[in-house]
Amino acid sequence: MNQITESPHTRRTSEHALEALICVFKDRVLTSAAVRDHHGHDESFHPSCSPDAVIKPHSTQEVADIVRICDQHSMPVIPYGTGTALEGGVVALHGGICIDLSEMNNIIQVNEGDMDVVIQPGVTRRQLANHLKDSGLFFPIDPGADASLGGMASTRASGTNAVRYGTMKENVINLEAVMADGSIIRTGGRSKKSAAGYDLARLLVGSEGTLGVITELTIKLYPVPEAMSSATCTFDNLEDTVNSVIQIIQCGIPVARVELIDAKTIEAINAYSKMDYTVAPTLFFEFHGSESYVQEQAELAQEITKDNNGGAFNWTRNTEERNKMWRARHDVAYASKLLHPKGKIWSTDVCVPISNLAECLLQTQQDIDQTGILAPMVGHVGDGNFHLLLLVDHDDPDEVKKATDLHDRMVKRALSLDGTCTGEHGIGYGKIDFLKKEHGPAIQPMLAIKKALDPKGIMNPGKIFEWANPS
Amino acid sequence: MNQITESPHTRRTSEHALEALICVFKDRVLTSAAVRDHHGHDESFHPSCSPDAVIKPHSTQEVADIVRICDQHSMPVIPYGTGTALEGGVVALHGGICIDLSEMNNIIQVNEGDMDVVIQPGVTRRQLANHLKDSGLFFPIDPGADASLGGMASTRASGTNAVRYGTMKENVINLEAVMADGSIIRTGGRSKKSAAGYDLARLLVGSEGTLGVITELTIKLYPVPEAMSSATCTFDNLEDTVNSVIQIIQCGIPVARVELIDAKTIEAINAYSKMDYTVAPTLFFEFHGSESYVQEQAELAQEITKDNNGGAFNWTRNTEERNKMWRARHDVAYASKLLHPKGKIWSTDVCVPISNLAECLLQTQQDIDQTGILAPMVGHVGDGNFHLLLLVDHDDPDEVKKATDLHDRMVKRALSLDGTCTGEHGIGYGKIDFLKKEHGPAIQPMLAIKKALDPKGIMNPGKIFEWANPS
Repeated sequence: MNQITESPHTRRTSEHALEALICVFKDRVLTSAAVRDHHGHDESFHPSCSPDAVIKPHSTQEVADIVRICDQHSMPVIPYGTGTALEGGVVALHGGICIDLSEMNNIIQVNEGDMDVVIQPGVTRRQLANHLKDSGLFFPIDPGADASLGGMASTRASGTNAVRYGTMKENVINLEAVMADGSIIRTGGRSKKSAAGYDLARLLVGSEGTLGVITELTIKLYPVPEAMSSATCTFDNLEDTVNSVIQIIQCGIPVARVELIDAKTIEAINAYSKMDYTVAPTLFFEFHGSESYVQEQAELAQEITKDNNGGAFNWTRNTEERNKMWRARHDVAYASKLLHPKGKIWSTDVCVPISNLAECLLQTQQDIDQTGILAPMVGHVGDGNFHLLLLVDHDDPDEVKKATDLHDRMVKRALSLDGTCTGEHGIGYGKIDFLKKEHGPAIQPMLAIKKALDPKGIMNPGKIFEWANPS
Repeated sequence: MNQITESPHTRRTSEHALEALICVFKDRVLTSAAVRDHHGHDESFHPSCSPDAVIKPHSTQEVADIVRICDQHSMPVIPYGTGTALEGGVVALHGGICIDLSEMNNIIQVNEGDMDVVIQPGVTRRQLANHLKDSGLFFPIDPGADASLGGMASTRASGTNAVRYGTMKENVINLEAVMADGSIIRTGGRSKKSAAGYDLARLLVGSEGTLGVITELTIKLYPVPEAMSSATCTFDNLEDTVNSVIQIIQCGIPVARVELIDAKTIEAINAYSKMDYTVAPTLFFEFHGSESYVQEQAELAQEITKDNNGGAFNWTRNTEERNKMWRARHDVAYASKLLHPKGKIWSTDVCVPISNLAECLLQTQQDIDQTGILAPMVGHVGDGNFHLLLLVDHDDPDEVKKATDLHDRMVKRALSLDGTCTGEHGIGYGKIDFLKKEHGPAIQPMLAIKKALDPKGIMNPGKIFEWANPS
């Protein structure tokens, strides 16, 4: 990983805080270079920066103890899940204590009758899926990585199922969190709806650790559908592919998943996940429902793809094949790295209204062709969300410049089409300038909230906003 | 309406603000007693209090002008939609300027391809439904009253369709708002999802005018289903009725609507809406989807109601009958008033996890029977949300005391069952004490946000929090 050797940020290490933490947590205050370095970066190309120490708390009270001590000494606090994010959200720009929540990974209570589950933030999505395997219930949100649920809430993650089931925003019922002064709050009960006061759960979802540390989540579950069917469908060109998706969504077909994968990415998938897909622009579909309802949805979707010159649906024949297909989809970021030996993950993440998707996506494809950058394209296109996996040698300034400019143009294009600079990855410290462009005057109330809830600027400073240090 | 003659609240009328407003808005600053009184109350029993003046702005810029002048003189600002809320949200406890948004009622743009619509806040739900009549799209959120969409967003409203389509929280894509300093913000673009910064839209939804004035909304629309079927089903007792609903939800049947109406309310409906329903605990159902999917859902639901000793489904035969049935359901609050000539609407509004619904609802029924208060019960039971329409003579202290105690016990019961004091009506100034009980330490960050975004306490002061005046 790139180290920031001359960080433009001031480190705000407090020796007093470290001493006080060692008093309480003894040798659980981890300060070895290996541990610190490991926690100073995520999976992106963003330069890393190590925290001063790492602690792996076992309870909400321990998180509160850490934060309270850090508050007393104005020492930064950086919550850490699995380190799989893509905008540098865990990079310790100002030093501080990394709170690694991986050991708070209990699944506390599955409430089958209410279709919800109470979990600790370190639970990962695959761990939860395994736990629920025989319950008849599942949790749909699935970013590519095996992320922690706390991290997923923090970045407002989504994934392939969001087109049908929503994002973390729609699927968090309530949160417990430790705020910047060490106080412990709960945002509400377990009822499906409430009109009681400000929606602190939705404020914390997507706040990327800048307002508080999520220490418990109650999230929605869904009944495993009676029938699930997955298929792939290839096209001659990207235009037909994207137009199919737009029409499917506009017809109101409740697809559970519809993913666009361009030819370059199919190549990568075939190599990395040992598949033998036809190398062409492809849609990955999944339909959920009763047997007859799934059939009905699939028939309608096939009519539309056929009208757009799509090939025949290639159905998976069993659960194993279906799982393999989606696992391959989830691994595209890792797969794409193979295409460029010096490449690191630089995942763009625009999202636009579906009626603007063709324009945004096709212009971007043209731009890629003209720029000559290797940029496989995948997308949760049912949501109007797509990614380029820019493969760039970060030691080659020319390549970096080309990629940066391509990315800039892509975000500007999305914003001009009433979209957003990030559909699901968050701002971290990689997209602060884009956030300003996107929100304009709305940055002011965001920053006012940040300052009100974290007056000393200790909560993951330098993320979402540059503002980090009130002194 | 009850007038607060000796208000416990300090009026914060500024003559300077009034003069400055008259300079700009001339005779559009309405100060007649009739207009002021009309705007000093909602449909609830909560004592009213008139604003000092009412202005009906025609544009976001005009709203900004009003707020900026009020900000300069620390004069309260109270946004007003249709005055149909139920917790005193528009009552001018501290005096001030009522911003009546009813003349900002343009439907700006229907984006059919994206299934969304951009509207001004004064648009009412029936106006929107009429506008969309031939578009093939509809907006599902339907509180009983013909409320304005701005008001519905402000109170995080829902209604009969929320079990399938969510509440205002899930259906607002973005908002434009005038903040306490008169600045105009937009919370985001029109893409279906975004991970860019704090979710200001969700913060404003449910903030009841205490953080800003909503001046434009972009909200989701849905395709009118190919088939819609409505039916009623009666039961011998409330227990069988509620158990049917719980099992239907737990089976994952995607009912579009399932409303519980007790025998007393059926009596009121028959009288007010000229219906001839059997007087018994009843469920009102609606199913949406393709012809075959609707049939499938209905069959499953009927199996469950039959298992719970329910009668045969009584289907509406056409659109007119279906509309009449739901209109009758929407009018229950008005209908119930007929049962008690001196009664005013005192609508309770608890919501609990569905697995706790039977306990909450049946204990409440027992409590009503023991208390001897007239309290028809209706509920959006698929969400775990139900209301009593307490019919109380507010000049009879004994009746008021009984009702107050019954209501207190009901809220405590809901909170002890992991629920909320309000599923959809909001806090206003009627439920501030309950909010504190429900949220405990989480009140602190809410109040910190309030103070950060409205440091002078001019935005609808005295609502959600007692805190109103920083001086």
